[in-house]
Amino acid sequence: MSVTPQSAPSPSAVTVLGLGPMGRALAGAFLAAGIRTTVWNRTPGREGDLTERGAVTAASAAEAVAASPLTVICLVNYDATDAVLRQDAVEAALKGRTLVNLSADTPDRARDTGRWAGEHGVRYVDGAIMTPAGTIGSPDGVFLYSGPAGTYEEHRAVLDALGGSHTHLGEDVGRAAAYDIALLDIFWTAMGGFVHALALADAEGVSPRELAPFAAGIARILPPLFDEFAGDVEDATYSGAINPLTSGVSTMAHVVHAAEAHAIDSGAMRAIEGLARRTVALGHGADGFSRVAEVLRRR
Amino acid sequence: MSVTPQSAPSPSAVTVLGLGPMGRALAGAFLAAGIRTTVWNRTPGREGDLTERGAVTAASAAEAVAASPLTVICLVNYDATDAVLRQDAVEAALKGRTLVNLSADTPDRARDTGRWAGEHGVRYVDGAIMTPAGTIGSPDGVFLYSGPAGTYEEHRAVLDALGGSHTHLGEDVGRAAAYDIALLDIFWTAMGGFVHALALADAEGVSPRELAPFAAGIARILPPLFDEFAGDVEDATYSGAINPLTSGVSTMAHVVHAAEAHAIDSGAMRAIEGLARRTVALGHGADGFSRVAEVLRRR
Repeated sequence: MSVTPQSAPSPSAVTVLGLGPMGRALAGAFLAAGIRTTVWNRTPGREGDLTERGAVTAASAAEAVAASPLTVICLVNYDATDAVLRQDAVEAALKGRTLVNLSADTPDRARDTGRWAGEHGVRYVDGAIMTPAGTIGSPDGVFLYSGPAGTYEEHRAVLDALGGSHTHLGEDVGRAAAYDIALLDIFWTAMGGFVHALALADAEGVSPRELAPFAAGIARILPPLFDEFAGDVEDATYSGAINPLTSGVSTMAHVVHAAEAHAIDSGAMRAIEGLARRTVALGHGADGFSRVAEVLRRR
Repeated sequence: MSVTPQSAPSPSAVTVLGLGPMGRALAGAFLAAGIRTTVWNRTPGREGDLTERGAVTAASAAEAVAASPLTVICLVNYDATDAVLRQDAVEAALKGRTLVNLSADTPDRARDTGRWAGEHGVRYVDGAIMTPAGTIGSPDGVFLYSGPAGTYEEHRAVLDALGGSHTHLGEDVGRAAAYDIALLDIFWTAMGGFVHALALADAEGVSPRELAPFAAGIARILPPLFDEFAGDVEDATYSGAINPLTSGVSTMAHVVHAAEAHAIDSGAMRAIEGLARRTVALGHGADGFSRVAEVLRRR
């Protein structure tokens, strides 16, 4: 198999490195779109039904990369992608080709991979998938990208085969990972609050299914509040007219008190209450909770 | 003014104790519905335009209570309501009348107030308002109640004048407060995650308004996940097929690492990551994050 660098766009071929649940979903969506798909996984035998559906299994990562102008890699993190990519044979095969890394990690790791790519003549786009594997190939998938816009545009037709929405966030290769971790921050903190509330409600005789519809009601008021808070922080207004911090800390204290009376660990709510109290103590009690974002950024 | 107990329903008169932003909104909605409204506040002069709109200002809490078959009280917490209600003259005036307490506090304080009411012949319904003062009188208000269903039903026509949705949750007088604190738990934890994400995004060069629409996208995926998690916890299934805990803790660690690299306090995410790691260490790494709710409830 030739490993000659190949930079001409060929929307009809893609390589997928990594066949975990997400990698398999990506390869399946490419196949469903009629794109010639080569797959490789460090541990063999993870192809599931991809082979029957037409995927070509490569014997090595280098061979897989050489088969397509575009390689998409999706592993658990960048320690894992480094272990696959930073080998002489793979670097040689990637030279002049495009690599899109859809693995999740921090912005500094994405930028470090961008530097490595530059040193090896690899055309590099970083990315993040914000939705579960089940959304791949459907309208519900959310994909974020950053890095050279021209490279992204060149391969956009193939990437669009993954379905859902695709957003290029800018040339800074760390930008997709920055959005990714900020959004995961929101997601996991909210889910942490929800499981804590389930435990607290249960201790008070309220079942999970009794609480769930009201919890969904809380989630539905968040999008306009997020918009409002984002404006408050960007414009440094921090309006507390509707809900001043002094009133917020009082209700946070009720939550901690009630949960800890049932011996339920309340570290997350305690940490947030602590930040809010610190913000009040800094003289911002009449401001809204959005002021906490500014205090968190102080040096 | 007579303080004769009066138990016959009279949907045309209500007393509001407490004229903070929420109390004023409640009184305003009652007036807008044509209900005779008597108001009182510990600090005088907080009526705003309520007097022009027809509210009667009482000289004392006891006089205010005596003016209507139904009294609604809305203060900062139950320390404040105790200070107003637990006086001989007020207790005498409330005897045989109905008190609806829409202040926020913990379920144990609500139950304690229920006991006090029983001892003084006060017909007591506890309640919670889940939405800001601006929603009162609009379809967006969310009101929760608990306590004797008959008493609630008797006054429902007046309470409905507040607009929005009204739900009676059961006879246990602490139940509305239990829902309230569980929902506040979700709300404040989610908002804590959001302001933390704003700080983290800003440190990475992503502005609040750039992040906000994607953050809203995260909020929109929460309601179905809340339903799914509630079922997982109630049925003790804790499915990790889509997103096992072992994979979740890895992304939580990315958030903590990236934020702390910018010196951003990450206590809440650290607490949630710690719970998730503890749950993995207890042998539940293949389960979903919903398993954390069960671990939080263990004794």
